[in-house]
Amino acid sequence: MLHRIIFLAFLITTTIACKQKQTTVDSSSSSSKLLLSASGINSFKNSDNAIVIHATEDLESQVKEILKESVIIPQPVDAGGGYSHEKHKRNYSDLYRVAISYNVNPTVQKLAFVKEMFTGYAAMYPTLGMHPKAKENHPGGKLYWQGLNEAVTLFYMIQAYDMTREFMTDEERTKIETDLLRPMATFLSVDSYDVFNKIHNHGTWSVAAVGMTGMVLGDDDMIDRSIYGSNKDGETGFIAQLDHLFSSDGFYSEGPYYHRYAILPFIAFAEAIENNRPDVKIFEHRDGILRKAVTTLLQLTDEQGRFYPINDAIKSKTWESDEVVFATNIAYKQYKDASLLPVIKMMNKISLTDAGVIAANAITDNTEDFYERPSMFIADGVEGNSGGLSLMRSPQKTAGQLQAVLKFSTQGMGHGHFDRLSLSVYDHGNEIIPDYGAARFLNIETKRGGRYLPENKTYAQHTIAHSAVVLDEKSQYKGNVKYSEEHVSQLVKNDMSNDRLQVTVATDTMAYKGTKLSRSITMINDSDISNRPFIIDLYHVDSSTGHQMDLNYPFFGDIIDTQFDYTRPANKTVLGKDNGYNHLEVLAKGSPLANHTNSQFTFLQAQRFYSITSVTNFDTELYITQTGANDPEFNLNLQRQYLIRQPSSIKNHTFVNIIEPHGFFNPIQETVTFPKSVFSDLSHEKQGDYDIVSFKVGEETYLYTLSQKRDQQTNHTITYNGKSISWDGPHQLIKL
Amino acid sequence: MLHRIIFLAFLITTTIACKQKQTTVDSSSSSSKLLLSASGINSFKNSDNAIVIHATEDLESQVKEILKESVIIPQPVDAGGGYSHEKHKRNYSDLYRVAISYNVNPTVQKLAFVKEMFTGYAAMYPTLGMHPKAKENHPGGKLYWQGLNEAVTLFYMIQAYDMTREFMTDEERTKIETDLLRPMATFLSVDSYDVFNKIHNHGTWSVAAVGMTGMVLGDDDMIDRSIYGSNKDGETGFIAQLDHLFSSDGFYSEGPYYHRYAILPFIAFAEAIENNRPDVKIFEHRDGILRKAVTTLLQLTDEQGRFYPINDAIKSKTWESDEVVFATNIAYKQYKDASLLPVIKMMNKISLTDAGVIAANAITDNTEDFYERPSMFIADGVEGNSGGLSLMRSPQKTAGQLQAVLKFSTQGMGHGHFDRLSLSVYDHGNEIIPDYGAARFLNIETKRGGRYLPENKTYAQHTIAHSAVVLDEKSQYKGNVKYSEEHVSQLVKNDMSNDRLQVTVATDTMAYKGTKLSRSITMINDSDISNRPFIIDLYHVDSSTGHQMDLNYPFFGDIIDTQFDYTRPANKTVLGKDNGYNHLEVLAKGSPLANHTNSQFTFLQAQRFYSITSVTNFDTELYITQTGANDPEFNLNLQRQYLIRQPSSIKNHTFVNIIEPHGFFNPIQETVTFPKSVFSDLSHEKQGDYDIVSFKVGEETYLYTLSQKRDQQTNHTITYNGKSISWDGPHQLIKL
Repeated sequence: MLHRIIFLAFLITTTIACKQKQTTVDSSSSSSKLLLSASGINSFKNSDNAIVIHATEDLESQVKEILKESVIIPQPVDAGGGYSHEKHKRNYSDLYRVAISYNVNPTVQKLAFVKEMFTGYAAMYPTLGMHPKAKENHPGGKLYWQGLNEAVTLFYMIQAYDMTREFMTDEERTKIETDLLRPMATFLSVDSYDVFNKIHNHGTWSVAAVGMTGMVLGDDDMIDRSIYGSNKDGETGFIAQLDHLFSSDGFYSEGPYYHRYAILPFIAFAEAIENNRPDVKIFEHRDGILRKAVTTLLQLTDEQGRFYPINDAIKSKTWESDEVVFATNIAYKQYKDASLLPVIKMMNKISLTDAGVIAANAITDNTEDFYERPSMFIADGVEGNSGGLSLMRSPQKTAGQLQAVLKFSTQGMGHGHFDRLSLSVYDHGNEIIPDYGAARFLNIETKRGGRYLPENKTYAQHTIAHSAVVLDEKSQYKGNVKYSEEHVSQLVKNDMSNDRLQVTVATDTMAYKGTKLSRSITMINDSDISNRPFIIDLYHVDSSTGHQMDLNYPFFGDIIDTQFDYTRPANKTVLGKDNGYNHLEVLAKGSPLANHTNSQFTFLQAQRFYSITSVTNFDTELYITQTGANDPEFNLNLQRQYLIRQPSSIKNHTFVNIIEPHGFFNPIQETVTFPKSVFSDLSHEKQGDYDIVSFKVGEETYLYTLSQKRDQQTNHTITYNGKSISWDGPHQLIKL
Repeated sequence: MLHRIIFLAFLITTTIACKQKQTTVDSSSSSSKLLLSASGINSFKNSDNAIVIHATEDLESQVKEILKESVIIPQPVDAGGGYSHEKHKRNYSDLYRVAISYNVNPTVQKLAFVKEMFTGYAAMYPTLGMHPKAKENHPGGKLYWQGLNEAVTLFYMIQAYDMTREFMTDEERTKIETDLLRPMATFLSVDSYDVFNKIHNHGTWSVAAVGMTGMVLGDDDMIDRSIYGSNKDGETGFIAQLDHLFSSDGFYSEGPYYHRYAILPFIAFAEAIENNRPDVKIFEHRDGILRKAVTTLLQLTDEQGRFYPINDAIKSKTWESDEVVFATNIAYKQYKDASLLPVIKMMNKISLTDAGVIAANAITDNTEDFYERPSMFIADGVEGNSGGLSLMRSPQKTAGQLQAVLKFSTQGMGHGHFDRLSLSVYDHGNEIIPDYGAARFLNIETKRGGRYLPENKTYAQHTIAHSAVVLDEKSQYKGNVKYSEEHVSQLVKNDMSNDRLQVTVATDTMAYKGTKLSRSITMINDSDISNRPFIIDLYHVDSSTGHQMDLNYPFFGDIIDTQFDYTRPANKTVLGKDNGYNHLEVLAKGSPLANHTNSQFTFLQAQRFYSITSVTNFDTELYITQTGANDPEFNLNLQRQYLIRQPSSIKNHTFVNIIEPHGFFNPIQETVTFPKSVFSDLSHEKQGDYDIVSFKVGEETYLYTLSQKRDQQTNHTITYNGKSISWDGPHQLIKL
């Protein structure tokens, strides 16, 4: 039987409970310079902390498996996914584990393994030219088809060497340093000058690997080039990357999925700098940007700790990822931010670093099993003025939070989606109005080698794959990454100071030429109105020319009720020709009920009811669509959408919607509570920059008024139905 | 704000942890005759068992809510779902709770509530004629449109009265008995003679209600009629129902969803009989059929305790249903069957009966949190010879069991499906090859009042909605319930004695005229072959005339790989015209790869990989279909199917398939293990009644041989590739 196991993540963390504590003799490295010191090792040896004990026991059992096989260092021939590629990745991971394990619990066999691995690589490396599968337009490596893997390899190898060099002979050390470590560092920083000096996470891996190598080998030039760039002028290198890759709020524009990957070399190299160049004060740099980078990443999660799948993202990735374990440990060690401890406790695993032990020991019986996710605005842009993400969360501390994410951050480079002002909604940890994420089955070979699928570009990145407005069936910024990168959306106003009423107003004037898009998301918590919080979604389009306008709401769940007329087409009908429309089959086409100014759509997901109540007019068309058209390989996930269209060519329109969670089907008790929306008679009018929304709940009429003005004026007055209505601050919700 | 709360289940159970134990004064009923005695009440009062304390505290908090509202007894005018209907149901539930609560923790207010409720109903009942919404062909009631609800009402009312009568004045008792309880019993047993004497669960509710009324009022005639039927000859009544509604193995032919509902009046009335007529020895009757009825019901669950959704069933219904809590408590009290305790422990709630306390007290620290589900055959039919269900389970004690259900039980009356010899597969508690269940959104008013949807008859009950073989696109037994009820399938052989190899062979000769259908399901656990257990599915069709033959595999999940060619139709294509085929859209039509004798289909569900490897020939057509065609109201749930068709008119064919769970995608580690099927070169030949299946795993070839003979011969010999192969018992699997 031949089975293939593909490993991608290599940090050592542990979740497995073991039976007994190892007895060890002391022979730990006393001169290690990177992330795990002699005192850290002693802590691992002598700890009575359950998480620490688990970590060492888990390491020991992993190493036991590793040592069952002999060391094989294959000739580099295969591209990603192939044998030699995966084996080299496996090797550095094994080397790293065994090196740490040798310090905690030394055996002759472990040291022999480490030496054999290092001398084997030292013997091979000088013989290698560029990898045979290297590509012309992609930075190549020697051990791998791409240089990125080479940097990651040195990142781990140098840590392994740091832990074991003092147990080697002078001759072994000379060989390893001369034939392997220095050549790798030279390859990464000199031969691959461009990547090393790039403001990009690939550059971060390079500078981290080379810089840490300099620290272990005592090479100040290497260290300086890594921190300040090859020219040592600070224009490139680690600090420049720290300055430019994170926004002022610690947001990483590619989104949390890549943020999670990039955080590791940032945090690890910073820790090494702190240990070796404390004068740099790296953790204080840019007002503690590394702390923000970690806490912002943690906040970009739903109630289950899964990262919001914005931009190209694999769903179901959680903060239990090894990179995040590593990052939270070091961030805690450096900043003593107690808000990190519940996360570390819930992860129930640590990295094998000094920081890991410190974090584990900081957890007490009083540490909560709950991570607080308050509402917050996360600014994008180095100066914090390039749009951002509004995270609006209902103010409860128990499970069952309603979360809305309004995204108007920068494009996010090649992994970005054309989804400015897009909304996603989560409730009780479930995706209610989902972001599709990426079209990719990661690491599943039969799905085009696990790479991004063609449908990622033809569907997932397009505007229509999101809850966003699309004009004339064209994606924002003409679907052009470069063009989109040049422009930013703006925050108009944001007020989350009041639990009852929270609002964010954002705008974009460049996504469609001559058109101002503006979306305001208001989350309302008022138990007099409804038993659950709800969202008012106002989307204004103001254009100099006429357009067809679509507002799309992707949803998961069963359609339970529609307060509009619809028919299901007898023949296969695709929503459009391109820009992702070509992937949507029309399941139903509807129109508002005669003489009704509202339409309503109710669905059931995870036994909970959700309704979207919309202001519609005689012209409105309503569609229910489903992914799967023009999908010859079944690459798209099943996803349905509720789409509200104003088909006539119009210049100005406001989409007015209430998104409302409201009920529960209990399959055990077979009871249904609150299966119907509470809202009726939704209406909207504009008075200049004021939005006036009214709706009824039962017999009561409510009036929501919002100022879209940018100015600082806090007192507002309008006239409504002949009555004067005044309020302070951005908005007001009153019973009439 | 007007919200509607619909209650359907009313037994009192509890899961809510509370803070402190109530202090009570003793004034409990010492003369109660039904399910909760004076000593039981004392146990509830004085228990230090956490589950018991929770139960009483939960009751107290429920009653507190009940007592906040005044008693309202509306004129019966509405049909099911309407106000008066739901209010009367709510009333008996409230009455039952408050009556028990008064005994445990008496207050003036509780007794006043009970008296007001009883005297209110006693004042109204004599004034009532038949309910205005009663239907001509359906047994009607006075308080409700149907008589069934009336029986359920008396079932609870008489228990409430049993607990509180001694706290009433003679005058009150006389009025309640004369104007309410006796008239209800008379209405149910005399006016509704037919239902009372029906061998049907509606009859069971009637006899239970009337019989318990007789016990409380001291009316032996009522008791006798309930136990032995109106004529007291045993031809009808409770014992006749016990004899005919359960198979010899305690299987209820409508399936577990209705079994769960019916078990309550059976077990409750039996307990009352045991308390009042111990000479009947009801729990010993028919070799302890009530014990089998309870344990069989519990075994008909997946790893999460959800009932297999065979026949008309609402999915997600679990054994935590109040009826099952009630039934397991009484079954434990009567039979002291320790296998019930883990279930009761995992439920973490009890019924408010003597049995509830006894069950709670029987749970110890040694009671496991694991309910063992071994493989078993459950015979249908009073004599146990009318087919049945084969439950095949992999032999592991930890989580992650593979379960196969081969169904060839009797039709199951109006709620039955035409799915003889159908298969469903569960793995790790997930539905892998699902049974569709019922087309119904229970209690969701907007879905046709929560009733069965038209698509239940046009799709869900049809053969094609199952993993079954369909000839000529017609359902089994011509889709005629009466015709199907007249015929049974047969068990040919069953051997679950060997963990490595388990097999069931079943046959049906009447589903299609002149055609013998035979399916054998073999579950194989052999870690030398594969890391997970797998299933060999052999389906023989032998007919006197030619047919198109379809074997259908419904599945949930993403399509990951297909080892066959397919195209996706450009235009909307529906699989067929009727018999459920009209609801299936063709997503892809395929054919085997040229010169290949196998086709393979791999899907990913809940991050696990599953493959179906099939013997196919040049003629085979392969379809991927999806529900949703001709579904004007979006009533059907999304469900995909993989269908293997032999399109030419043939008389004999064997469908040969291996169903294999094999791998895992870990989204946190981003690792993939075992993404590919291990099987290749699957082939099959028949030698008389012997099936010979060979397949390769890696370089090894395996031979599986099975005797389909009905005789008792245990030694078999065949010649394969010129070699003589012998085995003992039904089957053998060897490495060649």
